[in-house]
Amino acid sequence: MTLKMDAGALQTFLDEQFEQVARDYIVEEAQPMAVRVRLQVGEHNLRPGGTISGPAMFALADVGVYLAILAMIGPVALAVTTGASIDFMRKPQAGRDLIGEARLLKLGRALAVGDVLIRSEGSDEIVARASVTYSIPPAR
Amino acid sequence: MTLKMDAGALQTFLDEQFEQVARDYIVEEAQPMAVRVRLQVGEHNLRPGGTISGPAMFALADVGVYLAILAMIGPVALAVTTGASIDFMRKPQAGRDLIGEARLLKLGRALAVGDVLIRSEGSDEIVARASVTYSIPPAR
Amino acid sequence: MTLKMDAGALQTFLDEQFEQVARDYIVEEAQPMAVRVRLQVGEHNLRPGGTISGPAMFALADVGVYLAILAMIGPVALAVTTGASIDFMRKPQAGRDLIGEARLLKLGRALAVGDVLIRSEGSDEIVARASVTYSIPPAR
Amino acid sequence: MTLKMDAGALQTFLDEQFEQVARDYIVEEAQPMAVRVRLQVGEHNLRPGGTISGPAMFALADVGVYLAILAMIGPVALAVTTGASIDFMRKPQAGRDLIGEARLLKLGRALAVGDVLIRSEGSDEIVARASVTYSIPPAR
Repeated sequence: MTLKMDAGALQTFLDEQFEQVARDYIVEEAQPMAVRVRLQVGEHNLRPGGTISGPAMFALADVGVYLAILAMIGPVALAVTTGASIDFMRKPQAGRDLIGEARLLKLGRALAVGDVLIRSEGSDEIVARASVTYSIPPAR
Repeated sequence: MTLKMDAGALQTFLDEQFEQVARDYIVEEAQPMAVRVRLQVGEHNLRPGGTISGPAMFALADVGVYLAILAMIGPVALAVTTGASIDFMRKPQAGRDLIGEARLLKLGRALAVGDVLIRSEGSDEIVARASVTYSIPPAR
Repeated sequence: MTLKMDAGALQTFLDEQFEQVARDYIVEEAQPMAVRVRLQVGEHNLRPGGTISGPAMFALADVGVYLAILAMIGPVALAVTTGASIDFMRKPQAGRDLIGEARLLKLGRALAVGDVLIRSEGSDEIVARASVTYSIPPAR
Repeated sequence: MTLKMDAGALQTFLDEQFEQVARDYIVEEAQPMAVRVRLQVGEHNLRPGGTISGPAMFALADVGVYLAILAMIGPVALAVTTGASIDFMRKPQAGRDLIGEARLLKLGRALAVGDVLIRSEGSDEIVARASVTYSIPPAR
């Protein structure tokens, strides 16, 4: 399996197409069927008490699987999320970025499924786990 | 069942405790075990093409179940989301707010479970469906 | 919306096509986008202590959404489950059948999504809640 | 981390406590926070066309996480499933057993969360993926 987009190409795509959120994410690594993404935690991701919001973690999982798909099939696809499940297991560590490791479990013609493990930077403990399903449009 | 917080009290709580997101949500109605919340769609909720982002819908579901719990047990609880699943079924209608109808299916001492139906304002079609589980801390 | 299969036709289909499980289920009612199914609880559905097993409830949810789809599109479709989420909320009441109320939230050309509420017969309390996604093959 | 129950002890527990399903499962390996279980596919697990039923795969995931918990905390716990999500990704290969690899992502005092990858024996392709949450009763 070869990549159609590497980490740099994914980052450029994100910066251009999703300007409103792109500043939040750094594509750290892209491999076949797997991508690692960093969420740069900022004020707008925090909840009272300084913890990172659940929706911010959901968004990290969602973008992680999306980028893992694009890495394999290229920037043409208008994939849309059709479903997701997420478990929040521990409070993230204060003042640290989050690292999401997404891998594709299935990349079919019409559906792709990936899962994501989220940790605080520098920690082994899993903060959240998510699985995300994307529908891939036929014309690609 | 009587409410410990009505729609006005929930709105005030949201405005004070979650200032960063409170401007997005309007608590339209609170009933026993059920709350209706409006997401005022703004630039920061949109994706390329003008569609509302998945994480914005996830956040609406999450806050809807949270408010339905607070309506029943009052503002003292530090409930945290432990898990959620969401299905995205249709594209929301352009230029319309989203309405989330949350209901509690279980309100136990330690766990609460709710589900949420999300529609575009003025439409009967369901845009997304979510279920959300909260852990409720013992001291209440 | 008219039904392509009513409760009797669904029961006959189940009895013929799924003989190994058909004896477990009674199709009680079929309406547009909604079906009510009874799980006749037997020894093989029970766990130590006499409670109904989680997989038996999962199976009830799965078959409920399946029958709701068939009621709308007829017996030709070879729909397959692509995903499901389920929350178990209360212990079912001993010695009672389970009633599953399935409704379709989306019936698209390629994907259908339904949710199911499960109660013990004669009780208002929700024992479990599930959502189930089916992939519908193109040729129908 | 040391195991409170090894593969043999888990198998004995299963055989004694869950006689109705125990014949279906073989505990192949137990490690800290991880268990591998085989589903011996029989007639009662099949659907028309010879494919393994979704509920049978759900049950394999459920028992896999359960056994991974017992391996860590011992046979005293009356853990109950509170929620699960599952994605079915490929048709299992005909005439082969299923292998479920369960690992615990969190083992807290009150909640445990695990995920499971299911493959056909001798194949690398993932047939299904599940995550399962258990509530652990306080007295242990």
